[in-house]
Amino acid sequence: MNKLVNSIDEAIKQTKLENGMTVSFHHHLRNGDFVLNAVMESIARLGIRDITVNASSIFDIHEPLIEHIKNKVVTGLECSYMGAVVGKAISNGILEKPVVFRSHGGRPADIQQGKSKINVAFIAAPTSDPMGNCTGKIGPSACGSLGYAFADAEYADKVVVITDNLCPYPLTEISIPEVHVDYVVEMEKIGDPKGIVSGTTRITRDPVGLLMADYAAQVIDNSGLLKEGMSFQTGAGGASLAAAKYLKDIMLKKEITGSFAMGGITGYLVDMLNAGCFRSILDVQCFDLDAVESLRTNPLHQEVTASHYASPITKSAIVDNLDVVILGATEIDTNFNVNVHTDSKGNIMGGSGGHSDTSAGAKLTMIIAPLIRARLPLVMDRVTCITTPGDTVDVLVTQRGIAVNPKREALKRSLKEAGLPVMDIEALQVQARSMTGIPASIAKGGRVVADVIYRDGSLIDQIHQVQ
Amino acid sequence: MNKLVNSIDEAIKQTKLENGMTVSFHHHLRNGDFVLNAVMESIARLGIRDITVNASSIFDIHEPLIEHIKNKVVTGLECSYMGAVVGKAISNGILEKPVVFRSHGGRPADIQQGKSKINVAFIAAPTSDPMGNCTGKIGPSACGSLGYAFADAEYADKVVVITDNLCPYPLTEISIPEVHVDYVVEMEKIGDPKGIVSGTTRITRDPVGLLMADYAAQVIDNSGLLKEGMSFQTGAGGASLAAAKYLKDIMLKKEITGSFAMGGITGYLVDMLNAGCFRSILDVQCFDLDAVESLRTNPLHQEVTASHYASPITKSAIVDNLDVVILGATEIDTNFNVNVHTDSKGNIMGGSGGHSDTSAGAKLTMIIAPLIRARLPLVMDRVTCITTPGDTVDVLVTQRGIAVNPKREALKRSLKEAGLPVMDIEALQVQARSMTGIPASIAKGGRVVADVIYRDGSLIDQIHQVQ
Repeated sequence: MNKLVNSIDEAIKQTKLENGMTVSFHHHLRNGDFVLNAVMESIARLGIRDITVNASSIFDIHEPLIEHIKNKVVTGLECSYMGAVVGKAISNGILEKPVVFRSHGGRPADIQQGKSKINVAFIAAPTSDPMGNCTGKIGPSACGSLGYAFADAEYADKVVVITDNLCPYPLTEISIPEVHVDYVVEMEKIGDPKGIVSGTTRITRDPVGLLMADYAAQVIDNSGLLKEGMSFQTGAGGASLAAAKYLKDIMLKKEITGSFAMGGITGYLVDMLNAGCFRSILDVQCFDLDAVESLRTNPLHQEVTASHYASPITKSAIVDNLDVVILGATEIDTNFNVNVHTDSKGNIMGGSGGHSDTSAGAKLTMIIAPLIRARLPLVMDRVTCITTPGDTVDVLVTQRGIAVNPKREALKRSLKEAGLPVMDIEALQVQARSMTGIPASIAKGGRVVADVIYRDGSLIDQIHQVQ
Repeated sequence: MNKLVNSIDEAIKQTKLENGMTVSFHHHLRNGDFVLNAVMESIARLGIRDITVNASSIFDIHEPLIEHIKNKVVTGLECSYMGAVVGKAISNGILEKPVVFRSHGGRPADIQQGKSKINVAFIAAPTSDPMGNCTGKIGPSACGSLGYAFADAEYADKVVVITDNLCPYPLTEISIPEVHVDYVVEMEKIGDPKGIVSGTTRITRDPVGLLMADYAAQVIDNSGLLKEGMSFQTGAGGASLAAAKYLKDIMLKKEITGSFAMGGITGYLVDMLNAGCFRSILDVQCFDLDAVESLRTNPLHQEVTASHYASPITKSAIVDNLDVVILGATEIDTNFNVNVHTDSKGNIMGGSGGHSDTSAGAKLTMIIAPLIRARLPLVMDRVTCITTPGDTVDVLVTQRGIAVNPKREALKRSLKEAGLPVMDIEALQVQARSMTGIPASIAKGGRVVADVIYRDGSLIDQIHQVQ
């Protein structure tokens, strides 16, 4: 028995991929991923058309998708995040069918329930044996966790593993087991390590960012949650990382050991683990090589699946035990709804990822963002697109003040008592507008280019064509 | 959110277990398991009746099942192995419905396909966190792999984890994730470590056993399979372990590194791993504490699920890549069919376990057994019960000679050329009978007390009541 096939073309032929079917990809190689482009090029070459691409995220490196869409090779897109390059093309209307956006937890839930059917999953595997036992922990293109790929492997009709590091059977440290895999293909390079680790920015040195980070750490310190066993997730933006740094200092000073850190993992969170701030890291995605190295070598740092991370249909997911999450926003409105899907002109340049999942789960969901960006105010009457509903958002931290969701009266009181600059979100909006003016509202006239599906499966918003 | 409940009684009530339903158990605590008995006692106390017990194996410690059967609390049994105590009672006819025997690979396949429906799975977990992330690797009742429990966790309607070592959330080194678990219960002791590790006998000192072991190692050495990358499984019987010891010596002398050792793992196989005879161990079940310790500490020693081990409906299972397996037999017939379900009087005292799975998968399936046991001949005209079909069995090794399945002509030639005492299986039968006489045939008149389901789902044999 041998699952090895000679080329991606050959693997595609073996899977009997046909016009109208859906193929899937995971995004752990991030902006260094060569696999999606190679597979789609092969599909185009083989004359297969009308394909839906379900990729857990689409990065700028996947720009060739634009040509495939124009040529009708690709007629559908589903993802949890879409970078600005493909995003702008979609916003300009190149794709007839609306893109389907899901959250990181909603995606595996819909795959599991058959709402999101995958015919052929292509799994970029930094190391695989000839039967398809594979892992992201080792190999020249090591990306660490393969968390988002498990649902694809388990539920797709056919599964093709693509690797640039074939090892003898059996792989040790198996992440995805052979039981799900039909074919294994070698290609020379599955990705560019420089792009793979593009997820982390450095801790900000910008005074505005540092001020926000300081506020964020103080909010956590005064939330009642900063105690033994606290769990924590933060993004990889410069201010969020600075907030994590300040939080680390407080935790070390107060000798508090948290339970786990989670989410896209960076060296900064690894440092917190090694410093004893947390007992473990649960890792659905590595953002840099320090995270990859830690996942490979430290048993306290564990790979978890996207379902385990955030699926709303499991008996419990890790987000259900999350205390504090720090998240970003391109816009927030006076009802605390958050947009990370589009810019303020309505162009797609992001997506939920785990934004709405962690917001729903966390006891304290904090948005950290500068009050003004590119001469536009952060706070709107109504966000251009609702990524995360306001009733799951607790606090907005800006450099000019902190707004607390009116539903969290006790928290508001605590933060005020701590001397933090708490004010109504409307007051922050007034401040911003005093500097930027009231932005012209965008005409939402164009046809729908994307449906935003909330983690529970409901349609939470739609994104319209930018005129 | 909290899954902790105060008692097994309470957990059973919460699951809404009703008359006529099926509960399941895994057998990694082996003859030291306290969980099955505690749960069944609770079910009886709660007045629930007509329950089917699906236990991956039933050991002698589960003798209380006999009373539950007599009281109609239990009216159905499904398992892959049944020890002699409950086995004799079944053979005597205490259960109206036939027991359903499946192989270790067939069980998860039938669970996955819905052919074997589990309403409530009870998972004995040596360590668990309050959300049900659990493992067998650590804790006072550590049993190592939880390989057989994964299918139960994944496919049962309700899942109850029972532990005697509750740890803070999140457990590190998660085997079974919380996503499958509904309730977590603490009990004082889930098992007796002395019984947990009862699986291994020592290497035999019996000259007959040593002779067979020497023959077995020589068969492997002359099979053409003893080369770089060879994979190997053996049982934990005294002669099988001696064969492994002789094989180890040959592999070290010839400087051959195999790919993996598999199956129920013992310290002897761990020694072979550490000596460099194999690159890895794939572990569905630990038979002793050396194996548990190795699984916990050596990344080359990996836990695998029963599906990955041997399921016939996966895209591939490890048995599909197995080169050599050494197995036992209570009887073998001239068509090489093997019985490990009953003794020669027809009393149930075993079951396939992975016998038929590994026989089907391995390139060389070797049965090793003394020609006469308890004054009965090993070789029959027709085995009392077919566990493993003869066309998947290649070689029989006894102390009096070696029989090769006529379908393996080339192998027969190789072994003869190597000077091994190869003879027809009929000649071995004649030899045995010359010492024991022809055994009286058993009247197969009683009603059917057990259906033996082969790994492909077909009924391969039935076991009748012993008069």
